[in-house]
Amino acid sequence: MTYKAPVKDMLFDIRHLAQIDEIAKIPGFEDAGFDTAQAVLEECAKFNEGVVAPLNVTGDRNPSSWKDGVVTTTPGFKEAYRQFAEGGWQGVQHPADFGGQGLPKTIGAACIEMINSANLSFSLCPLLTDGAIEALLTAASDELKATYLEKLVSGQWTGTMNLTEPQAGSDLALVRSRADPQPDGSYKVFGTKIFITYGEHDMAENIVHLVLARVAGAPEGVKGISLFVVPKFMVNKDGSLGARNDVHCVSIEHKLGIKASPTAVLQYGDHGGAVGYLVGQENRGLEYMFIMMNAARYAVGMQGIAIAERAYQQAVAYARERVQSRPVDGSINASAPIIHHPDVKRMLMTMRAHIEGCRAMASVAAAAYDAAHNHPDAQVRQQNQAFYEFLVPLVKGFSTEMSLDVASLGVQVHGGMGFIEETGAAQHMRDAKILTIYEGTTAIQANDLVGRKTARDGGQVAKAIAAQAEKTEGELAKRDSVAARAMLKRLAPARKAFLETVDFIAGKTKVSPNAAFAGSVPYLLLAGMYVAGWQMARSLLVAEDLLAKGEDKAFMEAKIATARFYADHILSKVPALRDSVVDGADSVTALALEAF
Amino acid sequence: MTYKAPVKDMLFDIRHLAQIDEIAKIPGFEDAGFDTAQAVLEECAKFNEGVVAPLNVTGDRNPSSWKDGVVTTTPGFKEAYRQFAEGGWQGVQHPADFGGQGLPKTIGAACIEMINSANLSFSLCPLLTDGAIEALLTAASDELKATYLEKLVSGQWTGTMNLTEPQAGSDLALVRSRADPQPDGSYKVFGTKIFITYGEHDMAENIVHLVLARVAGAPEGVKGISLFVVPKFMVNKDGSLGARNDVHCVSIEHKLGIKASPTAVLQYGDHGGAVGYLVGQENRGLEYMFIMMNAARYAVGMQGIAIAERAYQQAVAYARERVQSRPVDGSINASAPIIHHPDVKRMLMTMRAHIEGCRAMASVAAAAYDAAHNHPDAQVRQQNQAFYEFLVPLVKGFSTEMSLDVASLGVQVHGGMGFIEETGAAQHMRDAKILTIYEGTTAIQANDLVGRKTARDGGQVAKAIAAQAEKTEGELAKRDSVAARAMLKRLAPARKAFLETVDFIAGKTKVSPNAAFAGSVPYLLLAGMYVAGWQMARSLLVAEDLLAKGEDKAFMEAKIATARFYADHILSKVPALRDSVVDGADSVTALALEAF
Repeated sequence: MTYKAPVKDMLFDIRHLAQIDEIAKIPGFEDAGFDTAQAVLEECAKFNEGVVAPLNVTGDRNPSSWKDGVVTTTPGFKEAYRQFAEGGWQGVQHPADFGGQGLPKTIGAACIEMINSANLSFSLCPLLTDGAIEALLTAASDELKATYLEKLVSGQWTGTMNLTEPQAGSDLALVRSRADPQPDGSYKVFGTKIFITYGEHDMAENIVHLVLARVAGAPEGVKGISLFVVPKFMVNKDGSLGARNDVHCVSIEHKLGIKASPTAVLQYGDHGGAVGYLVGQENRGLEYMFIMMNAARYAVGMQGIAIAERAYQQAVAYARERVQSRPVDGSINASAPIIHHPDVKRMLMTMRAHIEGCRAMASVAAAAYDAAHNHPDAQVRQQNQAFYEFLVPLVKGFSTEMSLDVASLGVQVHGGMGFIEETGAAQHMRDAKILTIYEGTTAIQANDLVGRKTARDGGQVAKAIAAQAEKTEGELAKRDSVAARAMLKRLAPARKAFLETVDFIAGKTKVSPNAAFAGSVPYLLLAGMYVAGWQMARSLLVAEDLLAKGEDKAFMEAKIATARFYADHILSKVPALRDSVVDGADSVTALALEAF
Repeated sequence: MTYKAPVKDMLFDIRHLAQIDEIAKIPGFEDAGFDTAQAVLEECAKFNEGVVAPLNVTGDRNPSSWKDGVVTTTPGFKEAYRQFAEGGWQGVQHPADFGGQGLPKTIGAACIEMINSANLSFSLCPLLTDGAIEALLTAASDELKATYLEKLVSGQWTGTMNLTEPQAGSDLALVRSRADPQPDGSYKVFGTKIFITYGEHDMAENIVHLVLARVAGAPEGVKGISLFVVPKFMVNKDGSLGARNDVHCVSIEHKLGIKASPTAVLQYGDHGGAVGYLVGQENRGLEYMFIMMNAARYAVGMQGIAIAERAYQQAVAYARERVQSRPVDGSINASAPIIHHPDVKRMLMTMRAHIEGCRAMASVAAAAYDAAHNHPDAQVRQQNQAFYEFLVPLVKGFSTEMSLDVASLGVQVHGGMGFIEETGAAQHMRDAKILTIYEGTTAIQANDLVGRKTARDGGQVAKAIAAQAEKTEGELAKRDSVAARAMLKRLAPARKAFLETVDFIAGKTKVSPNAAFAGSVPYLLLAGMYVAGWQMARSLLVAEDLLAKGEDKAFMEAKIATARFYADHILSKVPALRDSVVDGADSVTALALEAF
């Protein structure tokens, strides 16, 4: 099954929803207008369709393997990675100072989607490198930056994030790895880290581990965690590689999906201590790690969209090809391709609407990120930062939860063939399941949404979003098309439900935390459905306008039809989630623990 | 991970919802009252917990294998199957005339749940044998019955259903296998059948294949299909085994789940023709096959409940054990077992509520089956038959769809560990995915619900069910408990939504089939949620009454809490599904085919 990047859809969002030409007015992004976006996306599509996508099935059938501490990746990965690095794809969003292209996230996000659709397992390597780059850019000394950044940005070396330990998953307060200060200013790092994505592999000459550990005498809990750089190979003054450091991969996991991506258990310091270098200041490791995490969380949201897109394309291809039963409306008097059957259309439309909604939401979030980091006006920066931060848990949480449903529907469209591994549809479902777990489970995203993003400011940002969306309702109300009316019918009650839920969450988080957190995940899903639905409404308005101008009829009609489906079948589910959160808190915690 | 059969929950449903003591008043079931149910379930639990359940993980890691036409099942399966047969478990629901126990389905259904929770892959062998027995009982000649039934009922031989061919999955009109009449009254069967569960294995000495094929000159389409018995080994007059028949297993599939269950490609007649015997009359094969299918569909619904229960038990065990983070309400001032966290409770309650709701619905359906087949009063039989037939697509479609969500939540509760195959949580998710596909996909169930079960009688049976449920609302209205009020708040609007949907479906199926079938699956989910929710309401009333009498406080309180959760978090989703069906039909089919 081949992959065809949905460049046209991406460019529609980038141009009309994220408004790239506004971003190109920001100093530093002058060359990053629509034409650049188009050129980059087309090149990116060519690379991922041609080089990376064909290795997706290969990776599932020939996973990474471990022997005597050495990890051998899937045949073909190493060469594809070389081409990835040579093409400059690692540097798309990173600063030109360190060899990157310095493009806005609005463009970079589409590239991330493409490579993840092409091959989720492969893409995890650059995804983690991105996180390491972000952390070093923000917090590292000039010396560390000089030593590591250029080679990470070029893709010559790769990066990892080392948070998890057997007893410390979501709960980083339990981290036990330790770092002992050395006279030369370096540290010796000791401990066991698990679930380290691309913690060991053969695709690059060095691996730069970013590791959470405690310095002796540090405060207990998360306030005593520091962040260290621990390279696999020591780096000499001249940038060449030195001795092997004392970090070793003792095993890799046998997983449900993303099998080609090696998930390593790393042992630090078993032979005297791994040499590490403090990033920033002691005890501020969690803060820095959150920088990586936030970049990574957005990227994992894109992975959700990406895997859903791949599953959708495969399902459409099968539905066009597989002949089974007569259409119920008698339009064809013989067995027909199953895409003619209403329920197959319903499944494909559900997949499509979710993907378009989440992609639009992510694209708008990326534009906010770009403005938040680069706009000359401080107030604009601040507003965009708040908007972006509110959206990150939605992009991560909602896009990945929807990707599970979409990938499962992808198997379902295939019927019995979907259950046979040879078909390839099941791989997407297996791969997708990690997305609601890593970089913070959906519950962790929801805690973030409830605590930091909603309760802390009394729901101000949430309400500002609803006020913006209300303006879109005003636009819809001026139209008399069937689609605009259908959208308005669902968008308005969804706003009401969203606001009531925000008030409940903001009101309860302190006085009745069990009640607020009992509804955290339904609130996240509600907010995700609503904000994505709002973007679908904007998309509908744009498409109607362009259609009226005679632009690209079939494409605009499809945008309108998909937006309307979203309204009827997805946005319509928002009020029930309000009921779960607002009326259903008590019944979540009513059962005695012994009774489970 | 061990399995503990939820005998107490099952007996609660059997006694109070299915009302076994009413069934025991039916002639032939005099000995099948509550005490029998209890004795059978306890014995069954012991066998499945001790013998079958421990082989579940083994089967996933050591699937059935094929070599030179011979299938070797997972180590331990053969011996467990021998014990299963010796214990008389194949015969639970089958007539005493052929060596069975002749127990009501109300009891048998609980046995089916247990063995499937214990080991879905293993259980498929007896499940298919049940289907073969049903078909022979209904349609076969006395001679065929005499030859095959006793050995199938005893478990000495096993049965299969051969419907699917590469070009004929859901669409049996496309079946091409052919049967040529022979002078001795037998037939020679030729063709390829795929997806044949336990089509070849080493657990029993003979396999009795029930095969759909066409006799030369038969009408085209489904009206020209006949049903044949084709034994793996010929059977001599004295019942001993004769020559190998010309049916051979040419391969087995590599699947996403239920890996221990061999899914065979069977080749009939490559060496001169497989000897087959007509079941009933020529060209009535589909009708007979539907008998097997209906039994099997109900059983697959039980598989959904079963796998959900197993996933739930494993998730609860992990949530009690895994320590991570402090409770948000400050009730424990240290990291605590994750079962203390509201969102983990929400996930476990969602799993639990779905399981209890679907189990209650299936139990009531089983009681209707028993009355429909055995009650002396023809009108009672007819009413129960209509009720049962309406419920079969709900039991199959809704219980299996919910099982996907439940199994996925089971993985989610485990966090990162859930994604590691060693943990075992992922197996349930992989296994569950077949349930929405085989014995008719969810869409096929929904077609049945729309066409045969709703439109055909203008929604009469559906409305009769709603009228019954309205009486339960009346009972709830007399209570002033928080739980009863919460249930009533959701049950009444759910009834309204159900009835509006039924009217829409009944009204549109003929005049606008695309509109009706566009909403078929949402209608099925709506109906399933509603009928299961009604049973939860009944369960709540019973538990409140028994609690008032001082009976089993903790158990009754848990029943009430779970029912209330169901109302707040599941039943509350019913109105949105009405909106999808009634308002959303057009947007399902609006997109041009080329635009997908």
